[in-house]
Amino acid sequence: MSDYLTIAVDVMGGDFGPRVTIPATLDALKRYPHLSAKLVGHQEAISPYLNRLNADIACRVEVVHAPDTISMADKPSQALRNGKQSSMYKALELVSEHKAQACISAGNTGALMVLGRFILRTLPGIDRPAIISSVPTVNKHCYMLDLGANVDCSAEHLLQFAIMGSVMAAAVDELEEPRVGLLNIGQEEVKGNEQVKLASRLIEERGGLNYIGYVEGDDLYAGRADVVVCDGFVGNIALKSSEGLARLISRKFQASFKKGIYRRLLALIASPVLNELKRQMDPSRRNGASLLGLQGIVIKSHGSANRKCFGYALDQAVAEIEQDVPRKICHEIEHKLS
Amino acid sequence: MSDYLTIAVDVMGGDFGPRVTIPATLDALKRYPHLSAKLVGHQEAISPYLNRLNADIACRVEVVHAPDTISMADKPSQALRNGKQSSMYKALELVSEHKAQACISAGNTGALMVLGRFILRTLPGIDRPAIISSVPTVNKHCYMLDLGANVDCSAEHLLQFAIMGSVMAAAVDELEEPRVGLLNIGQEEVKGNEQVKLASRLIEERGGLNYIGYVEGDDLYAGRADVVVCDGFVGNIALKSSEGLARLISRKFQASFKKGIYRRLLALIASPVLNELKRQMDPSRRNGASLLGLQGIVIKSHGSANRKCFGYALDQAVAEIEQDVPRKICHEIEHKLS
Repeated sequence: MSDYLTIAVDVMGGDFGPRVTIPATLDALKRYPHLSAKLVGHQEAISPYLNRLNADIACRVEVVHAPDTISMADKPSQALRNGKQSSMYKALELVSEHKAQACISAGNTGALMVLGRFILRTLPGIDRPAIISSVPTVNKHCYMLDLGANVDCSAEHLLQFAIMGSVMAAAVDELEEPRVGLLNIGQEEVKGNEQVKLASRLIEERGGLNYIGYVEGDDLYAGRADVVVCDGFVGNIALKSSEGLARLISRKFQASFKKGIYRRLLALIASPVLNELKRQMDPSRRNGASLLGLQGIVIKSHGSANRKCFGYALDQAVAEIEQDVPRKICHEIEHKLS
Repeated sequence: MSDYLTIAVDVMGGDFGPRVTIPATLDALKRYPHLSAKLVGHQEAISPYLNRLNADIACRVEVVHAPDTISMADKPSQALRNGKQSSMYKALELVSEHKAQACISAGNTGALMVLGRFILRTLPGIDRPAIISSVPTVNKHCYMLDLGANVDCSAEHLLQFAIMGSVMAAAVDELEEPRVGLLNIGQEEVKGNEQVKLASRLIEERGGLNYIGYVEGDDLYAGRADVVVCDGFVGNIALKSSEGLARLISRKFQASFKKGIYRRLLALIASPVLNELKRQMDPSRRNGASLLGLQGIVIKSHGSANRKCFGYALDQAVAEIEQDVPRKICHEIEHKLS
């Protein structure tokens, strides 16, 4: 691996497979001269994309053949039983064998979770990995976890998530004291269910964080916190609801500019502004969720990501490698919870 | 009461109090010739608004003096102990005494919940009231409940919510067989926490509804279901997250059209379209949540509602009175769960 950062890419994953994942990876190799990539997937599916690479890129690409693919329909348990020859499995294995510092996949999330946990194991002191991603805010963005890895979390788990999220924001965004909030249905002490109330006390007493207390659903996008902690059931639904509403608004937006010739003309004139807005509304722009808490970096891209979006997920992988996020989490957990 | 529909309006509630609630109520009296209103609040605060009413409106307005007001900061327990002379308490009392068929307030939600339950009691067979509201969808809208009245729900409660929501959609939207979905983090049988899985079986077996199974966060706005059932913690966060994102988009939208003179000019030309869009994005347009499951109709308006928005909540009250929603819920629960 020498001085290069190395990413293992499950090129078969996602709705478009190699058609998106390989060009996006080659783009990233151009962006990052110190990056190398192991393209994991069926050799025959990969090779057509590697003709006519210039020498500088070619020397940083390696193909790792994997005859099988885990499909979106496969159950995690199937993936665990029968997936050893799959591109996802082999990409994760490269991380566990220290042949790559991060793995990225746009494939089946459930399978990635289960295989990631099986192959890489959780960090000492972490009971369960969590899915973290950033959401846009008025000023910038905030990290939110868990987004669906855990449907039933104890207060202790939420404490671990709070520490991991804070490490992520501090490392990747270079914040000195990330503001950590706990998602609840009101900001008052008395609000919320028992699990959240207990978690709030735990984070306050044992987290050693810049804990700002409860935040509400609408605070997510208002920039009140840098990290928002919640259980995976709630987080998944909050994020998907927002994405659903963004899509609805985007549709109404387009429909509005199609009613009659005057509006069409207007849309033409205003197209630079409208396109800018469409980009800002696009949930896939902030692509690249991470599975935090494993002994290795695992990035999950949206299945529907296009070349550019898969590129954002690759950026996230590079940032986490450069900051060595797993080691920092390990350090903080040891320091705070043992 | 004769043939009039009568609404008791807590005119002191909300961020603007009588300044919004009374003009909005007078507007509603113009819209609905068969409506009469009891304005509940401090007489001195109300009387300035009642000068120069024309005779047709004046004869349908009655002032009910209440010396106290429950503030947004009051805890529900305080409201229960000390609130007997408050406008909210007296408005609810008018419903329990059959002097009004519905009560509406833009005040403290927690207090309205607790007082509503204390004064009106739940319907036979209903353990807990739920907050229901509609959210916009691609085609029209869908009802969502619970939105925060209950932070810990059993599967049995979710079943009751499903039946109540279905009655609401059938009655107010005149749907023959409203499609009822249960909010979850995936559509597969295996997904979700234990409470949701159990609730799904219960609704399937005992609900006697047009149950379509699990729906995800982004389905909320996609029009897949007419009623979406969830626990109050999840529902509150899903709705508020979406509202937060809508506000963020709206801000970016405005900012986008303010960069430079060319864009300002463009905004001027495009203003009818932009205003239409802003209206469609505005979460307060669908104002008027209901407390379902009580022996009477209780409508909660957003605290920040303006005159027009408070009017939407009044429309909701009229619709529920006309359809006699509580009686229909009572009938369905008796029919299905006893």
